[in-house]
Amino acid sequence: MDIVFSERHARHAGRGELYDGKLVPCFEKPERAGLVLERVRDSGIGEIIPPVAHGLEPLQRVHSQDYLDFLRTVWQEWVAIRGDIDALPLNWPVRGFSQRVPDSIDGRLGFYSMDAATPITGGTWEAATAAADSTLTALARVQSGERGAFALVRPPRHHAARDVFGGYCYLNNAAIAAQRFVDQVGERVAILDVDYHHGNGTQSIFYDREDVLFQSLHGDPRQEFPYFLGFADERGSDAGSGFNRNFPLPWGTQAETWFEALDEALREIEAYRPGLVVVSLGVDTFKDDPISHFLLDSDDFSRLGERIARLGLPVLFVLEGGYAVEEIGINVVNVLGAYDATR
Amino acid sequence: MDIVFSERHARHAGRGELYDGKLVPCFEKPERAGLVLERVRDSGIGEIIPPVAHGLEPLQRVHSQDYLDFLRTVWQEWVAIRGDIDALPLNWPVRGFSQRVPDSIDGRLGFYSMDAATPITGGTWEAATAAADSTLTALARVQSGERGAFALVRPPRHHAARDVFGGYCYLNNAAIAAQRFVDQVGERVAILDVDYHHGNGTQSIFYDREDVLFQSLHGDPRQEFPYFLGFADERGSDAGSGFNRNFPLPWGTQAETWFEALDEALREIEAYRPGLVVVSLGVDTFKDDPISHFLLDSDDFSRLGERIARLGLPVLFVLEGGYAVEEIGINVVNVLGAYDATR
Repeated sequence: MDIVFSERHARHAGRGELYDGKLVPCFEKPERAGLVLERVRDSGIGEIIPPVAHGLEPLQRVHSQDYLDFLRTVWQEWVAIRGDIDALPLNWPVRGFSQRVPDSIDGRLGFYSMDAATPITGGTWEAATAAADSTLTALARVQSGERGAFALVRPPRHHAARDVFGGYCYLNNAAIAAQRFVDQVGERVAILDVDYHHGNGTQSIFYDREDVLFQSLHGDPRQEFPYFLGFADERGSDAGSGFNRNFPLPWGTQAETWFEALDEALREIEAYRPGLVVVSLGVDTFKDDPISHFLLDSDDFSRLGERIARLGLPVLFVLEGGYAVEEIGINVVNVLGAYDATR
Repeated sequence: MDIVFSERHARHAGRGELYDGKLVPCFEKPERAGLVLERVRDSGIGEIIPPVAHGLEPLQRVHSQDYLDFLRTVWQEWVAIRGDIDALPLNWPVRGFSQRVPDSIDGRLGFYSMDAATPITGGTWEAATAAADSTLTALARVQSGERGAFALVRPPRHHAARDVFGGYCYLNNAAIAAQRFVDQVGERVAILDVDYHHGNGTQSIFYDREDVLFQSLHGDPRQEFPYFLGFADERGSDAGSGFNRNFPLPWGTQAETWFEALDEALREIEAYRPGLVVVSLGVDTFKDDPISHFLLDSDDFSRLGERIARLGLPVLFVLEGGYAVEEIGINVVNVLGAYDATR
C-alpha cells in the first residue's frame, strides 16, 4: 500500500507539556514519525510518496473558520508578545463561564483548547496542514482503487474537535478525510478508532450524523484522559442516534478482552456497509507505552491488521498516538503488513 | 477596626503556576500576608485577633458538598500517587464534553477547576478553611456592632465558584460571609469587588439572587483574566436580574476613570440599602502590580477608603489580590486607615 509522508511534520516540535503537575518534555515528538518511517521503509510494505496540497476547503468542512484563522495566526501574535517559547493556554471557559471569544491571546488560547498539554509552536500550522494534505493524498489513493493506504503523519488529531485543540491534536484529519469521502463519493464512512485514548474530537464532529459511524476502543474515561467523553452511553444524537459506539476498557485490559470489543466494533462496521473505513491507528495500546495502561503485545497488532482486512473494505489508516518510541514502528508495520497479507 | 488573622495562611504555599507558557513561581505567596500584617500592625489601626472556628456549615451554604469533599481529600490521594509535588490539573471539561465527575484524580482536578495556575498543596485545605474562619470571625465583629472589620487572609477567593477552584482561589469567603449574614440577620448584602480581576466566582454564586448585590470594577475580560466572565451585559438572571453590575475597564485605566466607575457602583449600593457591605479588597489595581494593568497610586487607596466610609454602612473588608509585594501593605492600610478616619 502507498504510504504518504511529509518531512514537514518535524516543524511541530513542542518543548513542554503539563503532566503529573510538572512541565515535562512533550511525549508527542518528531522522533515518533521518524521511527515509524524507518520501519515502514525497511518492511517494503509499499511506496513512500509525498503529499499533494489540497488547500483549506477540506479543513473548512470540519473546522470552523474562526478556529482555522486562530491556528494559522496565533504563533505570530504570541511570539511578538512573549518571545520564542511554546504557546500554552492558562485558563478555560468551563461550566459557568460565557462562551464569547476574548480579544487577548491568552483568552483565545483558552477558548480554543481543552488542556495544558498541547503547545502551539512556530511550526504547528505548517505541520498540521502537511498532515491534512498527507491524509487527503492517502485518501485519494484509496478513492482511485487502492485497497488501502497509510497516512504517516503527526501531530495526531482525533482529540481535535470543530473548534477545540488538545490532546496533542490541532486538526482532526481522520474527520477531514471522512468528510471528504462523503462529499466526493457520497457513500457512508466508518471510523474505527483503536488509539488508547478516546477520540473525543472525532466523536463530537459526527455525533449527530448518520453518514459517519464512529467506533472507539479506549481507556475508560473515568480513569483516563480525556476524562469527560468516551462513555458507553454516548450513542449519538438526533439523526446520529445509534451511530456512535464507545468501548471504554479498564486499565490493565489484556488482548483477549480488547479483541472481543474489537470484534463487536467490526461486526457493527460490517453491518453498516460503509464505502470506506478510516482507522485512527494509535499504537499506544502497547504494553510498554509510557502514558497508557493496556497490555497488547507486538503480535497483537498483526492480529488487528488481519481482522480489519477481513472486512473486505477499502481502508485509510491514519497514524494517531503511540509513545513507546522504540516500538511504535514495529507495531504500526505489524498492522499494515498483516492487512496487506490478508485477503 | 479589628483585624482577623491566622498564621495558618502560610500552610498554603504553591510552588508553581502556568504563566506565559512557563511554569513559574507562584505570584500568590505567603509573603503577601506577612507584609500586610506588618503594615497593619505598625499603623495601629486596630487589634489583631485570631479566628474562631466556624465549622463546615457556612461553607456548605455556598459550595457543593462534593466539591468540599474533593478539596479536603485531594492532596492525600495525589501525594500517594505522584509524591510531594503540587497538584495541578491537566485538562478541562470545556464545551462539547460531558459534565460527569470522573473517578481518577487528574479527571477530578480538571472537573473542579478552571485553570493551570492554582496548585493544590499539602496545606491548601487548612489555609483555605483558616481564611474562611477568619472572614466569619471578622463578620461576627461587624454583626456585634463594629463599624468595620478586616479579614487579613490568603489564599484569595473571589474566583472560586460553587464547585470550581481557580485564579489562586479555593473557597469563596466573601460569598460565604455574605451568605452567613443573609442567613443570620435576614438583611441584604452588597458586595463591592475592587480587585483588578473580575470576581467571577462571587458573581456566579449570587447571579440569580436579589438579596445579594454584586458590583465589580475590573480589567476588561476581553483583555484580562478570567477572560470568560465579567462583561458589562451580565446583569443577573431570574430573581437576580439587575442585581449584578460589572465595570470592565481597559488596560491603562487611570484613577479618574476608575473612581467614576466606583462612584456609580457606590450609588447603586446606596440605593440598594443593604445591611452590610462586603468589600473584596484587592490592591492589584496599583500601578506597579506585576500582573495587572491599572494605574492607581498609593494615595488613591486612601480615597477608596474614604468613599466607602461615606456610605455610612457596616463594612467587612476581605483581602483579595495584590502582588506588588512591597506595596500591598501600604495600600491596604491606606484603605482601612481612611475608612476609619472618615465619619
